[in-house]
Amino acid sequence: MKRGLFITFEGMDGTGKSTQINLLKDRLAGEGHDVVLLREPGGTSISEKIREIILDNNNSEMCSTAEMMLYAAARAQLVEEVIKPALNSNKIVICDRFLDSSIAYQAFGRELGDAVEVVNRFAINGTMPDLTIFLRAGVSLGAGRIKNREKDRIEMAPSDFHRRVYEGYAFLEREYPERIVGIDAEDSIENISKKIWDAVAGHREKL
Amino acid sequence: MKRGLFITFEGMDGTGKSTQINLLKDRLAGEGHDVVLLREPGGTSISEKIREIILDNNNSEMCSTAEMMLYAAARAQLVEEVIKPALNSNKIVICDRFLDSSIAYQAFGRELGDAVEVVNRFAINGTMPDLTIFLRAGVSLGAGRIKNREKDRIEMAPSDFHRRVYEGYAFLEREYPERIVGIDAEDSIENISKKIWDAVAGHREKL
Repeated sequence: MKRGLFITFEGMDGTGKSTQINLLKDRLAGEGHDVVLLREPGGTSISEKIREIILDNNNSEMCSTAEMMLYAAARAQLVEEVIKPALNSNKIVICDRFLDSSIAYQAFGRELGDAVEVVNRFAINGTMPDLTIFLRAGVSLGAGRIKNREKDRIEMAPSDFHRRVYEGYAFLEREYPERIVGIDAEDSIENISKKIWDAVAGHREKL
Repeated sequence: MKRGLFITFEGMDGTGKSTQINLLKDRLAGEGHDVVLLREPGGTSISEKIREIILDNNNSEMCSTAEMMLYAAARAQLVEEVIKPALNSNKIVICDRFLDSSIAYQAFGRELGDAVEVVNRFAINGTMPDLTIFLRAGVSLGAGRIKNREKDRIEMAPSDFHRRVYEGYAFLEREYPERIVGIDAEDSIENISKKIWDAVAGHREKL
C-alpha cells in the first residue's frame, strides 16, 4: 500500500532545525506536495495542553518518569490524530522532534534507560519515520545560540544533562544508519539545506 | 527496613469507595496513626493538572494510548513525590484507585492489553500496595448510583466498556488473591467497614 513520507528533524536546541524545516517545507510545497508541519510536544489540542505542563518552569518538581510518560502521551495523540491520517492521504509529514528526542533526552539525558524505548514503541504503534535528519553539533554550539533567550524547563537542565543528550544522539546515529542522516550543523545554511534535499530525494519514489 | 503501610481501594464508580475510605481513615487516625489520603489521578500539583486533561469532556478525541500514558504520568509523579516519602516515614497511605484501575479500565475497558501493565510497572518503580480493598458489585449497581449526577469523560463511556472493566476487576481478584481482598459492595456500610478493618488488621505488624 502506498503511503506518504514521514520526515523527522532531530538535534539539540539551537542547531538550526526550524530554519531548515521551513526551507525544506517551502521547497516541497513549491513542487506541489501537500506538506504537514508539526512540532513535538504539540500538534493537537490535547498534545498542546500536555506541552504546557512539560515546559512550565513552575513544575520543577516533575520526576523524570512522569516527564517521559507525558512526552509519550503527547506523541501517541499526535500519531493517532494527525500523523497516521496524513500519511494515509499520501501527504508529507515533517515533524520537529519525535521518538529519537525521547531516547536522547530521557533515556540518556535523564538516565531512564530502556524503559523509554519500550514505552514509546507503544506510543507510536508502528508509525516510524522514513527519514530522520539529525543536525549534529558539538555540545557547546546549541547552548551558545540559545543563551540569550528565555529558557524553558528542559533548556534549564544542567550541562552534564546536555552532554548525555549529545551522547544519546551519537548512539542513535550509529544504531540507525539507514534511517538517520547526520549533517554537520556548523556548515552554512545553504550547504545544510542542499544535503537535506539530497537525503529527501533518496525517498523520491514516495513523493 | 521497616516501611509504612500502603492500602489502595478499587472498584467501579458508585460502589461506595469514598465512604469506606473515610471510615477507615477516621478509625486509623483515632488510634493515633499518621494517615495520608490520596486519590488518583491527582494528589500532586502536576498530577492534578494531568487529571484536568484526562477528565475534561472537551477532550473527547483523546486516543486510548494517550489516556493510558497520562494516567501513568500522574501515577509516577504521585509515587515519587508523595507515596514513597510517606511510606519511608512509616505513614499509612490510603489511595483511592491505583495500578489496578489502569489494568481494569485501560487494559480491559479500552482493550489495550499487556502494554498497560508494562508501562505502569515503570511508573510505580516497585511501589506496590500491601493491601487492596476491592468493592465488588454487579456491573449495574454503580451505574444506577451515579446516573443522577453529572458524568465526566470516563463515566460517559458506553456500557460494554463498563462490562469489560468489570471483567478486568474479576481477573485481578483471581490473579492476586494475597493482595486483593474482594468485598461485596451491596452489603451494609457497617458490615463492609468491619470486613475492611479485619483485612487491615492482617497487616497489624506494620502499624
